[in-house]
Amino acid sequence: MRKLADVEYAIGVLSWDKEVNLPLKGARFRSQQVATLAGIAHDLFTDPDLGKLIEELVADGAELDEAQKRNITLSLRDLKRSRKLDRDFIIRRSQLVSAAYHAWLAARKTNDFSVFADPLAELVAVKREEAEKIGYEHHPYDALLDEFEPGMTSRQLDTLFVEVRERLVDFVRRIREQPEPNDDFLYQTFPKDSQWNYGLALLRKIGYDFDAGRQDISEHPFTINFSPEDVRLTTRVDEHNFATMTWSCLHEAGHGLYEQGLPSEQYGLPLGKYLSLGIHESQSRMWENNVGRSLNFWQAQYPELQSVFPEQLGDVPVTDFFRAINKITPSLIRVESDELHYHFHVLIRYELEKALLEGSLEVADLRDAWNEKYLAYLDLEVPDDRRGVLQDIHWAHGSLGYFPTYSLGSFYAAQFYHQATIDIPDLEQSISQGNTKPLLDWLRENIHCHGQFYSANELCEKVTGARLNFSYFMDYATKKYARIYDFGF
Amino acid sequence: MRKLADVEYAIGVLSWDKEVNLPLKGARFRSQQVATLAGIAHDLFTDPDLGKLIEELVADGAELDEAQKRNITLSLRDLKRSRKLDRDFIIRRSQLVSAAYHAWLAARKTNDFSVFADPLAELVAVKREEAEKIGYEHHPYDALLDEFEPGMTSRQLDTLFVEVRERLVDFVRRIREQPEPNDDFLYQTFPKDSQWNYGLALLRKIGYDFDAGRQDISEHPFTINFSPEDVRLTTRVDEHNFATMTWSCLHEAGHGLYEQGLPSEQYGLPLGKYLSLGIHESQSRMWENNVGRSLNFWQAQYPELQSVFPEQLGDVPVTDFFRAINKITPSLIRVESDELHYHFHVLIRYELEKALLEGSLEVADLRDAWNEKYLAYLDLEVPDDRRGVLQDIHWAHGSLGYFPTYSLGSFYAAQFYHQATIDIPDLEQSISQGNTKPLLDWLRENIHCHGQFYSANELCEKVTGARLNFSYFMDYATKKYARIYDFGF
Repeated sequence: MRKLADVEYAIGVLSWDKEVNLPLKGARFRSQQVATLAGIAHDLFTDPDLGKLIEELVADGAELDEAQKRNITLSLRDLKRSRKLDRDFIIRRSQLVSAAYHAWLAARKTNDFSVFADPLAELVAVKREEAEKIGYEHHPYDALLDEFEPGMTSRQLDTLFVEVRERLVDFVRRIREQPEPNDDFLYQTFPKDSQWNYGLALLRKIGYDFDAGRQDISEHPFTINFSPEDVRLTTRVDEHNFATMTWSCLHEAGHGLYEQGLPSEQYGLPLGKYLSLGIHESQSRMWENNVGRSLNFWQAQYPELQSVFPEQLGDVPVTDFFRAINKITPSLIRVESDELHYHFHVLIRYELEKALLEGSLEVADLRDAWNEKYLAYLDLEVPDDRRGVLQDIHWAHGSLGYFPTYSLGSFYAAQFYHQATIDIPDLEQSISQGNTKPLLDWLRENIHCHGQFYSANELCEKVTGARLNFSYFMDYATKKYARIYDFGF
Repeated sequence: MRKLADVEYAIGVLSWDKEVNLPLKGARFRSQQVATLAGIAHDLFTDPDLGKLIEELVADGAELDEAQKRNITLSLRDLKRSRKLDRDFIIRRSQLVSAAYHAWLAARKTNDFSVFADPLAELVAVKREEAEKIGYEHHPYDALLDEFEPGMTSRQLDTLFVEVRERLVDFVRRIREQPEPNDDFLYQTFPKDSQWNYGLALLRKIGYDFDAGRQDISEHPFTINFSPEDVRLTTRVDEHNFATMTWSCLHEAGHGLYEQGLPSEQYGLPLGKYLSLGIHESQSRMWENNVGRSLNFWQAQYPELQSVFPEQLGDVPVTDFFRAINKITPSLIRVESDELHYHFHVLIRYELEKALLEGSLEVADLRDAWNEKYLAYLDLEVPDDRRGVLQDIHWAHGSLGYFPTYSLGSFYAAQFYHQATIDIPDLEQSISQGNTKPLLDWLRENIHCHGQFYSANELCEKVTGARLNFSYFMDYATKKYARIYDFGF
């Protein structure tokens, strides 16, 4: 398993390097090198000797401790899943992904979904086939979702998203009736170097360990790790938008802190890996939003920020800054969304991909369905495909079942953060004095160190005493936005 | 073979990243990841199926063209060599290398060779064993040398180094009797950013392709490639020494231009690989010295350099600059040596490692032997081990037989460059007008594109009509330094 991890992390280094360093002409052989390593990793994992060993350990594991047993059980789970997809299927799927990806690029270029429609339809068909091969109890969606969010089901998601529809739609509508906060001052000129240095300082302040990581520039921010002792972030800097760099830093740092907190002695084993994408995202969202868009946090950090940008922010009170960075306004683009509208973006994608999978929606009708939903949920006319159904790469990659993990992240974050304020009575005060270490310690101890020892549902119950519940997010949103928009609920 | 190359280049990416990017704590798992990939590469190369296939193609290769035949022959050569060393031997050797390397680090710290002596003695013993396993005709040295410089023998080296002793020692002594050129102005303050940008501009000017490569900072400059389309250089910048960055750039660019000129359609095959370390070094030395320390080159480049550093160099005539960058003065440290004394450094190491291998010198006496030779050849008292026998990493890595390739590089460079001036009559004029493209084109056509199609001896004869001959280097040195030191020979 560790040898396999070595190869997978080597792929990680090659992929990171591709985003951060690769010279233009280097792409061709780099793809080939990654494909070769991916083939080697696949062979290592499906090596019959490894499978036999795992099965023997499951059958006769009396001497193993709980952690070892869990490592074995989870390895067997992953192995069984991978055995359901034979080599021919994987090759066929990867060819369809490649075709769909290139069609998506071409469609974006011409701003025309129809270029993407047929390859996507073929890809959806193969994903449906995949769901059948993997197997599921209630809905084919569950088979795909399980890869990203083990243990989560479409039934649990349906319950959550019913509440999003019932409670959040109305809440956001009421906010939108209030006067908008002014955020013009976030869009002045903020020199790139100063932003970059400020971002690094912010990362240090919240406990990101630069001896076990680094930050670089890439087109799209991401976090990647090659061990808990080498966890790398990327960001981007927009000279005319202070928000781009700052909250991407905090978001990626949340991912990075999680990876740096995984137990290095479990390297390559399930207990050394992140639990699920939803739990991963709970860490990034917590630092980005629950902490990073709170008044408490900026009460401590703002004077330094003002000293870095005296001309831009010297005259702006921290309360105005706080209101500006929490402005609620619908946007066509998911990744540019505020933290409330965000869940409508996810909800729309969830409804659409579920419908595609069960066959109640044809890819040919996807654009229209997309546009209708944006009108219904966000009150927005979609002006073209690039700002509509073509905006995300996920479907072109064949990643159906991925989007809900983003919302799960916010919901878990709210529930965890609520628990942290109970377990650490002076947490808010501590943050308002510039000390986020108690929170990080709490996350390390309650979430990071466990890897995959608990399932996400188990972890949530263990930490908060309850299963995932949308109310925590609603409570967080209500408390925060009532203050900003100055109205009672 | 291409799959193997993919894995080897992946190791390359991980190694490059280690030197350029790795956070402090990342080293432990990175070493493990590299070791795993190295094991996989070894298994791929020694896979009996590959060996059988190569042998079949050798036996029945009537339909193959010359290039394919040569690829097969060379692959079999490498395979046969690797078969002579069994797994146990390789593990034992790698353990001794690791022990010797750490002893070398410790010895450097305490500045005491005796800490390194015993592990080195064991390593020399295992290298002697390796030479016996590999086999040789005349001298065990040849078996080791062959790994770095295929086809070269200690007899051929002896002949070359006799001339170094007979002709170069006397020549340098006569130079040293002349007044030294002033080079103080090279050691003013040259701001790092300006140096860095100037270095990049210089690389562009001589034809290094930044779409197929990049330059970064590392502790020790090096060149590495992951395909001919991704060739990376590193350099270092010393604010108080203009020479450090500039000639390291030119040197590494020489290596880089060679790698960028290898045929990409031969990726992973011998015809897509550099011919030998000596030939590789001929490319770096040519751009560093034959071109990069010539008056012609700087006659074109100097005005721009002056405009970048007007305060430092505005008042320095190009002829003074030319003299300064060619100042001949003995140094204790090989990597800080001028281009003439350099060969004494190599000669000393060659004599010592040959004696160690044949058993005529014991490791216990190595320090004394080293110090005696520095007195004899360079007229220098070695003040301590760190500036003496402990200065290079090569022996600690088990790389006996490597050093001579540095001198071979200079000698090949002189002979090739001489031929280039014959084949391109206006070469010198073109360079003095700032156009080095004719030289690069000539190198591409005569050297780079062949990969390993010819042996080094064959290539030298094909290109220059003669075998490697020290006289070309002597002629180059005589012509150049007579001018600088203003005396007849």
